[in-house]
Amino acid sequence: MSEKAWRKNLINIEPYVAGEQPKNENIIKLNANENPYPPAPGVAKVLASKSATELKKYPSADAVPLKEALAKRYGLSAENVFCGNGSDDVLATAFRAFFNSDKPIVFPDITYSFYPVWCELLKIPYITKPVDEDFKINVKDFYCENGGVVIPNPNAPTAIGVGKDFITDLLDNNPDVIVIIDEAYVDFGKYSCVELINKYDNLIVTQTFSKSRSLAGMRIGMAFAQPELISYMQAVKDSYNSYPLDQLAIETGIASVQDEEYFISTVEKIKATRDKSAQEFRAMGFKVTDSETNFLFVSHPKISAKEIFEYTREKGVFIRYFNKPRIDNWLRITIGTEEQMETLIKIVKELIESR
Amino acid sequence: MSEKAWRKNLINIEPYVAGEQPKNENIIKLNANENPYPPAPGVAKVLASKSATELKKYPSADAVPLKEALAKRYGLSAENVFCGNGSDDVLATAFRAFFNSDKPIVFPDITYSFYPVWCELLKIPYITKPVDEDFKINVKDFYCENGGVVIPNPNAPTAIGVGKDFITDLLDNNPDVIVIIDEAYVDFGKYSCVELINKYDNLIVTQTFSKSRSLAGMRIGMAFAQPELISYMQAVKDSYNSYPLDQLAIETGIASVQDEEYFISTVEKIKATRDKSAQEFRAMGFKVTDSETNFLFVSHPKISAKEIFEYTREKGVFIRYFNKPRIDNWLRITIGTEEQMETLIKIVKELIESR
Repeated sequence: MSEKAWRKNLINIEPYVAGEQPKNENIIKLNANENPYPPAPGVAKVLASKSATELKKYPSADAVPLKEALAKRYGLSAENVFCGNGSDDVLATAFRAFFNSDKPIVFPDITYSFYPVWCELLKIPYITKPVDEDFKINVKDFYCENGGVVIPNPNAPTAIGVGKDFITDLLDNNPDVIVIIDEAYVDFGKYSCVELINKYDNLIVTQTFSKSRSLAGMRIGMAFAQPELISYMQAVKDSYNSYPLDQLAIETGIASVQDEEYFISTVEKIKATRDKSAQEFRAMGFKVTDSETNFLFVSHPKISAKEIFEYTREKGVFIRYFNKPRIDNWLRITIGTEEQMETLIKIVKELIESR
Repeated sequence: MSEKAWRKNLINIEPYVAGEQPKNENIIKLNANENPYPPAPGVAKVLASKSATELKKYPSADAVPLKEALAKRYGLSAENVFCGNGSDDVLATAFRAFFNSDKPIVFPDITYSFYPVWCELLKIPYITKPVDEDFKINVKDFYCENGGVVIPNPNAPTAIGVGKDFITDLLDNNPDVIVIIDEAYVDFGKYSCVELINKYDNLIVTQTFSKSRSLAGMRIGMAFAQPELISYMQAVKDSYNSYPLDQLAIETGIASVQDEEYFISTVEKIKATRDKSAQEFRAMGFKVTDSETNFLFVSHPKISAKEIFEYTREKGVFIRYFNKPRIDNWLRITIGTEEQMETLIKIVKELIESR
């Protein structure tokens, strides 16, 4: 293919091959950390009552009404909020806005797989710091000189969270760079550092509607920070796409944010199912990290993760296996409904008892 | 503000100040090239029948069902189609994927204002070629050595289109770079070069749902090209955001594409209103370019564009004035309904007769 001169100007990136999507509706999908419950009832009302005619107009620039709804929910001002197409878009925008140092940014070795990808794409130098044997992050590893820090709390796929002491320690030792705390799973956890944005002018907190708010299908993510930082993210976003969120994403997002009671009830239901499932996996001999997320991270001492993954898949339950250093004997299992988890546990029990 | 060390790593970009959005619903908005008619009736059916529960799941990766619907409509394969969040996102993705030469890319001096912005953001060198006195693009200007070409057809804000001879001439003289033809307005025009993608492996054609398909609120844009080029755009998009379009954008888009009859009827209605309005502006003494779009580009020999803009604004009709070299005595007027255009023409006539 090399004879074509235009090929030499192509971006240096591997063309992507999309993953397999199961089409069989009987499959129990516990591999994407989706929420098993529907979004808030107000979301259905938005769809039922929305006039299609209004879609002829451009949406609100910068999703202002959604920013206002989020600001109200979190006791902030709309100037503290940025909205993007899923937290991937929000994080990529923050990387672009803030990680322009010659020094490497730093994140844990076991973490969200997109961080190194964005670094490669945006030509941001980076280093990783190994989590310990128990997958815990050591805050002192992040005292090193760097061009920025990004840490998910709780971390994925380990499911482990850190508390306020860790975050303030991290921030106090990194006053000269931007620190991003990726809180994709925080609503299932114990500590959110959104409360710290007024104290630390270099802190960005990102969240998503895809997990706790059951709106993965709508691609909504947000960041919280002091207005100056938000204005830079907005400048980056606006410079390549004037209207970040479509009108229905804005309106369904607002309906979700405004129903606190429903939000709490589904989050609590998932946490209860999670804690019960964790006990059952431990009873079957699994190591299970203390999950502060909507998934479990588990490993069996005798049966390999790959074998368990393939066995449950064969039986119609998809869980997540990572063929990666340090975690290739671990599985990530999204918390489904009580019934879905019972089905999975029954299948895993069969496999173990067959030995 | 300079005492903070993290400021030195900020991206070098001006924080954006959002434009004024009129809240008064009586205003006639002819300043954003939106479609005055609702989207296809199938779009309303999607909203009315869509289960909110399904929004808990991630959308189709890479908007595959929408690609398939578009492929069918255009007699192509899904591998020839890329979908993004509005054609801004599609164009920015193409710039990133294909404009990585040290040589400057080239586009007309009077054209879509985002091209130089993306070049600045992505550090792409560029040069512009002046359109002639009548705002026509001279194809020979684009024979120069370059790192890529982008030309809107029809051009904006001039409203002027070019035909097949121009496009093939342009392509035949630029075999070594990627040529992007931005067809945002092409459905109101005379010639779309989508038919040429099978012949030219370096051609990318971009389009949008925001104008002819009345779906500006849903942020849907697409590109057509040979599969290799599409795969590079997909790789860029997927590397920073795995799920480009939300589920409702995919489904409303499909409903629009599948209703060819409605599409033709609204496009024809707008073209008829446009041609009638153009006559009336000419009758009032305006210079009016031959529009192949859903807007008019007009200039009066005696009354300045700025004054007309301010006068109609005062009377409740918003049109577009650009305070830019070469076009600062011209106005861009979106084609509204027959009634809206009559209202505007009446107001402009008052102003002219008052002199």
